[in-house]
Amino acid sequence: MTATHTRRRANLAALLPAHEADAILVTGGVNVRYLTGLASSNAAVLVRADATATLATDSRYTGAARRVCADIEVIEESDVAGALLALPPGSGRTGIEADHMSVTDYFRLGGKHPRLSKVVESVRVVKDDAELDLIRTACELTDRAFAEVLPGLRPGLTEKEVARALERRMIELGADGLAFDSIVASGPNGAIPHHSPSDRPLERGDLVTMDFGALYRGYHADMTRTVAIGEPAGWQRELYDLVRAAQRAGRLAANAGAALHEVDAAARDLIGEAGYGEFFKHGLGHGVGLQIHEEPFLSPRKPGDAPASPEGLPEPERSSREPERDHEHARLEDRVPVTVEPGVYLPGRGGVRIEDTLVVRDGGPELLTRTTKELLVL
Amino acid sequence: MTATHTRRRANLAALLPAHEADAILVTGGVNVRYLTGLASSNAAVLVRADATATLATDSRYTGAARRVCADIEVIEESDVAGALLALPPGSGRTGIEADHMSVTDYFRLGGKHPRLSKVVESVRVVKDDAELDLIRTACELTDRAFAEVLPGLRPGLTEKEVARALERRMIELGADGLAFDSIVASGPNGAIPHHSPSDRPLERGDLVTMDFGALYRGYHADMTRTVAIGEPAGWQRELYDLVRAAQRAGRLAANAGAALHEVDAAARDLIGEAGYGEFFKHGLGHGVGLQIHEEPFLSPRKPGDAPASPEGLPEPERSSREPERDHEHARLEDRVPVTVEPGVYLPGRGGVRIEDTLVVRDGGPELLTRTTKELLVL
Repeated sequence: MTATHTRRRANLAALLPAHEADAILVTGGVNVRYLTGLASSNAAVLVRADATATLATDSRYTGAARRVCADIEVIEESDVAGALLALPPGSGRTGIEADHMSVTDYFRLGGKHPRLSKVVESVRVVKDDAELDLIRTACELTDRAFAEVLPGLRPGLTEKEVARALERRMIELGADGLAFDSIVASGPNGAIPHHSPSDRPLERGDLVTMDFGALYRGYHADMTRTVAIGEPAGWQRELYDLVRAAQRAGRLAANAGAALHEVDAAARDLIGEAGYGEFFKHGLGHGVGLQIHEEPFLSPRKPGDAPASPEGLPEPERSSREPERDHEHARLEDRVPVTVEPGVYLPGRGGVRIEDTLVVRDGGPELLTRTTKELLVL
Repeated sequence: MTATHTRRRANLAALLPAHEADAILVTGGVNVRYLTGLASSNAAVLVRADATATLATDSRYTGAARRVCADIEVIEESDVAGALLALPPGSGRTGIEADHMSVTDYFRLGGKHPRLSKVVESVRVVKDDAELDLIRTACELTDRAFAEVLPGLRPGLTEKEVARALERRMIELGADGLAFDSIVASGPNGAIPHHSPSDRPLERGDLVTMDFGALYRGYHADMTRTVAIGEPAGWQRELYDLVRAAQRAGRLAANAGAALHEVDAAARDLIGEAGYGEFFKHGLGHGVGLQIHEEPFLSPRKPGDAPASPEGLPEPERSSREPERDHEHARLEDRVPVTVEPGVYLPGRGGVRIEDTLVVRDGGPELLTRTTKELLVL
């Protein structure tokens, strides 16, 4: 992967002049991994405008670092940020990652470094082949676990048991871990978009929403299906068909060049026209990669809109603490993996969400989640 | 749990005058959970000196918040920090958690709030009964998984397969997840304290170090055992006996009132006297609770020592970015769970680490990890 990481650092270095920086001190753990291949809880990398780089990590990780990042200088030091800021080109125009440095560290290091935001993230939006392969594998493992667990779903199993079965199967199939805390929401719990699996047993007449994904070599999959336990009532099937149509509309709109808010609107408008707009309270989707939720975010927010307000729609998993994306990324591009996951949640009754991970490609979306979107009646 | 959380907030409020603060804006996710019971990726709580509190979270979590935190005011807002800073008592003397706020957020919110550090953490060091029960359960699940996986260990299984078997069993037994990424290090890999499980198959003649733990309702267990595959060589048994003796010495020293560096020394001195001091390169242990690594840290560092330097010994999992602990916590106290985990790592040959989680009690340590520390020969 050395050539891949070298190319990534070169892409980053090329952006530094526009930020009036001679170098960037990268301290975000995911960003360090992206630029060097090293996964560590205490590492930082200084990337200079000439694309040279120095990595710092402590003695627990220097062995791994020298193996994984054979092409860059590695220094062993516990205070990784302090050590790298002491190196040339000097600290005058070395920017720090303001989104990934604590206030404590910033002032400990002098409180004067230019504060950069979302620079490495902007490089990460468009994925290279190595990344797409890993996301593809993560999605395959997720699909397969679902297919293998599905026949065992029956009334009496609890939400927790279903979640654990999906998770166990993903790991057995080769996942390195879970992409996020699984959601299994049955019956009325389906009205809670982020419901934690409980001891509630599945009952005949339930819709059951399962939102889960595999982690594979640092890359994430994200998938949701809602199934029916026993023959669904009319309102359940109607709701399912609506969300399914909205999900399809969202997928078809997820083309290179499409404005993010227009992709969201393609799905949201269908739900709104059916009179359920107030029950679809989150954004349509989000990028996936080394993070389960990353840029770009598909939401109704347009470039130039004010940040999320009390009246605004929260994106599926975005914290208000994440700064706004650059306007230059307000459109989808070739090689950008995203989720498309509309949902309708009826308080006290239940809900439906359908979610695929797909890759935006110039020729049209490449669907990575392959499980059927027919309503499965168990 | 409402009464428990009310008491925790009162304990925090009582510390505010000493920090010259009228209120503290708590944004660290683990700290918010500790004070309110709400686990959320976007929540903050303002705790005032009079012990009243207001929680803010976005619409995904307000339902859960109103259920879990029935006794405090909940406001729905995406910009949780901004919303809470706009509330009385006004922002003049509302401190922020400098360790848990990004530079981006700090300046977005005015860049003027008093920067507090480790205030909630200092309250968290001594655990209440509810917490000790959960840590006890997490440790039981970890012990049981080990006991059930142990008979299946044999040459030919890979490190990864062993790790996945331990993890699967913990989940099946009722763990909510993994406390951290498991370590399985066999043969020469045992010389790497933080080795990631690889495809290396176990071989006759290996020592195999397994470091893993269950997560249970937010609380962590941490356990390490080193076993022998086939009859161990003389040097292997000698190394094991040394580490076992050091671990015992560390445990016996972990009494309420003991200085942290003295507990470390009790184990380290034995290893040093045997001539292996340079091969025990990390601290003796760390606190466990809502985080797998939290205060107090058992290391050779004394109160007043300079922060970790290139020559210093990194603590087992501590990032240099964590500020120093207060001197008032440089001694162990009743009801503080810690690990005791000495190790010796011989480059190219292998290593041994033995780790228990225990609770410091006035009457002597309560051992939570119950698995034998005899050398298990498989």
